[in-house]
Amino acid sequence: MTPIPVTCDTHPCLNFDAEVLLRAQAVRVLLLDVDGVLTPGDLLVGEGGEVIKRFSTLDGHGLRLLAASGVRPVVVSGRDSPPLRERLRELGLEAHAVLGKSRKLPGAEDLLRELGLRWEQAAVMGDDWPDLPLLARAQFAACPPVAHPEVLARVHYRTTAAAGFGAVREVCDLLLVAQGAYRRLLEQAIAGEEESQVKPTLLSTSPLRGS
Amino acid sequence: MTPIPVTCDTHPCLNFDAEVLLRAQAVRVLLLDVDGVLTPGDLLVGEGGEVIKRFSTLDGHGLRLLAASGVRPVVVSGRDSPPLRERLRELGLEAHAVLGKSRKLPGAEDLLRELGLRWEQAAVMGDDWPDLPLLARAQFAACPPVAHPEVLARVHYRTTAAAGFGAVREVCDLLLVAQGAYRRLLEQAIAGEEESQVKPTLLSTSPLRGS
Amino acid sequence: MTPIPVTCDTHPCLNFDAEVLLRAQAVRVLLLDVDGVLTPGDLLVGEGGEVIKRFSTLDGHGLRLLAASGVRPVVVSGRDSPPLRERLRELGLEAHAVLGKSRKLPGAEDLLRELGLRWEQAAVMGDDWPDLPLLARAQFAACPPVAHPEVLARVHYRTTAAAGFGAVREVCDLLLVAQGAYRRLLEQAIAGEEESQVKPTLLSTSPLRGS
Amino acid sequence: MTPIPVTCDTHPCLNFDAEVLLRAQAVRVLLLDVDGVLTPGDLLVGEGGEVIKRFSTLDGHGLRLLAASGVRPVVVSGRDSPPLRERLRELGLEAHAVLGKSRKLPGAEDLLRELGLRWEQAAVMGDDWPDLPLLARAQFAACPPVAHPEVLARVHYRTTAAAGFGAVREVCDLLLVAQGAYRRLLEQAIAGEEESQVKPTLLSTSPLRGS
Repeated sequence: MTPIPVTCDTHPCLNFDAEVLLRAQAVRVLLLDVDGVLTPGDLLVGEGGEVIKRFSTLDGHGLRLLAASGVRPVVVSGRDSPPLRERLRELGLEAHAVLGKSRKLPGAEDLLRELGLRWEQAAVMGDDWPDLPLLARAQFAACPPVAHPEVLARVHYRTTAAAGFGAVREVCDLLLVAQGAYRRLLEQAIAGEEESQVKPTLLSTSPLRGS
Repeated sequence: MTPIPVTCDTHPCLNFDAEVLLRAQAVRVLLLDVDGVLTPGDLLVGEGGEVIKRFSTLDGHGLRLLAASGVRPVVVSGRDSPPLRERLRELGLEAHAVLGKSRKLPGAEDLLRELGLRWEQAAVMGDDWPDLPLLARAQFAACPPVAHPEVLARVHYRTTAAAGFGAVREVCDLLLVAQGAYRRLLEQAIAGEEESQVKPTLLSTSPLRGS
Repeated sequence: MTPIPVTCDTHPCLNFDAEVLLRAQAVRVLLLDVDGVLTPGDLLVGEGGEVIKRFSTLDGHGLRLLAASGVRPVVVSGRDSPPLRERLRELGLEAHAVLGKSRKLPGAEDLLRELGLRWEQAAVMGDDWPDLPLLARAQFAACPPVAHPEVLARVHYRTTAAAGFGAVREVCDLLLVAQGAYRRLLEQAIAGEEESQVKPTLLSTSPLRGS
Repeated sequence: MTPIPVTCDTHPCLNFDAEVLLRAQAVRVLLLDVDGVLTPGDLLVGEGGEVIKRFSTLDGHGLRLLAASGVRPVVVSGRDSPPLRERLRELGLEAHAVLGKSRKLPGAEDLLRELGLRWEQAAVMGDDWPDLPLLARAQFAACPPVAHPEVLARVHYRTTAAAGFGAVREVCDLLLVAQGAYRRLLEQAIAGEEESQVKPTLLSTSPLRGS
């Protein structure tokens, strides 16, 4: 088959507020609530508990891209279930996940210590009161459009995309732009190449300019 | 890890109409329909009946907070199924639940008698005709935004949040504000503490002022 | 428990266009498509086919009220599955259901003949091309807000409520108002009584006036 | 039963932009992403992986009509699961499907070669980055209203209907109009006839005029 030149522009179409991007530049870890953030927030309960959980393909791809850029996504959830573990396994997020603790702060602080990171390097995405202690400490706090009013009032960024339908992807994109990794990953995608690992140390010395 | 001071304001962001709050002040029990109130109203039917029910994490947390404030949530549903029982067990709401009766009034009246409460102390949340006798008698009647027109026309409060996605949480919040318990619970949440039990007798002598 | 007088008004709150009500007055049977009408139109496919179907509690109650008023609801679907059969059994609609025929017209005509009814006595609710022959022949044709454009353009009534979330209930309500049975059924509901069977022959001689 | 004349107009009600129709006229194959295109994009994960997938009845009928018009629908997905295979079997789309490859371009090019077609004869519908190489090469590129911003910015057509609720049907309709096959298929549907196979060679010599 004769190759056809790709006429499609590779210039990024996304746009984020400069102040928000500056704030997100130092982030090295993204702490994610599960229900209402990685899922639409509906618990699908069967006879033996949560038999199904709903996740988003958009989010999944974003988390893979984010990890490639050197920002580590970690799940911090008050709940735990086999479907959640299955999805974390698929996304390669099982190792550091903090699951099944109703109070999230101790687990999150242990995790940061383990990773050698501080709150000034953490982004947090949550939707309800148990996330408030983390959101209050984070360098960058985000939530989906449907979240408790006390959360909506305490974040730096509210996504346009709904939870379970790309809300986490939108935060991943924002972090990738802030890291200066977005454009290269997009060019690789349009060219049909696998995303290559991006060195975070390199990135931290070449911050995003003028996007 | 050096503790970082929480800079986030602990002032409540919620706002309810004063008239509505006054009406809800005497409430000591919240009677809840299930389908279309605690769930989005879609029955997920498999070969053996209802195999899955969809609940909301936002609602679950609100019901825990409400119970801590001394207002008892009780489920009154015309239907019954293993997934419903599973969720009630998880929320600690199995003891008083009235399930599987198409006519709801006798069960609700038995329940109030058992709890030593009167309709003037009851809030009711429903979405369809079988809830009308309860809504008509309640001190405080509420419904989600998608409800039968005859219900929408007969309540004191319609939630903004959708059923199965925080509608019940919104009513819990309203009752917590009306009881004067909201601010303290929010402060505990932001501090990352477990919510402590709040004495209802104390609360009834210190009603909400000016919020 | 001392009975508390119900202060709630029993006057119906629904409102339909007079022309639409006149057209629906002669209806004695309601032919209902399933997917996209009684369900939201999403097929939930598992390893062995359709393992779950989503129905609406609002619709279920409407179909019970409609049957009590003497208008018979009958399902006519191109598909067939155990979950559908389960729901039809629960609603008492299994006897006359026409299932699993991609061409709906022959089955619908057989059914009308069997019931001794004519197209001038039939309401039809559908959302896609296979319903067009029935919608074109019906005395009263209705569809949900999400339907194929060719269907949307060929009905007498589009519901406000979404399929699987009360669209069928809205048509049931309309038919109950047109039959003159709505007000009595509503009064019974507010009083907490079981709906009593309403004689269709009586109804046909006492059409709706001025509502 | 005395036949009743169908009074319903058989004139098509759909309307597409002329420029878009011209572009779609040469299409002979429709490459379809699955998650977020044929489904709403939520992965329903159980203990053993994806246990359920949500598809649309509207889409299913559109794909049958499209195949009857001589345009071949083919699925190209980065994922693979038993529920997806089940649905493809039901729709007769299992033979050429390209499943489980995260990089989609090689599989799509192999497929076109196999079918003896070129990118100038291909329509592509996708929602995320892995679809970009295909969308960039396609004669006609489309996406649902919820898609990644980089995809939304690089298509010739965005559907009004949501993914999993008729988005693919809308593209099928567009292609049927562009092929000049829509009106005849609609007339057959209103008449209650099975759609007859339409010869693509005949169609290609009788393009749509003035619709």
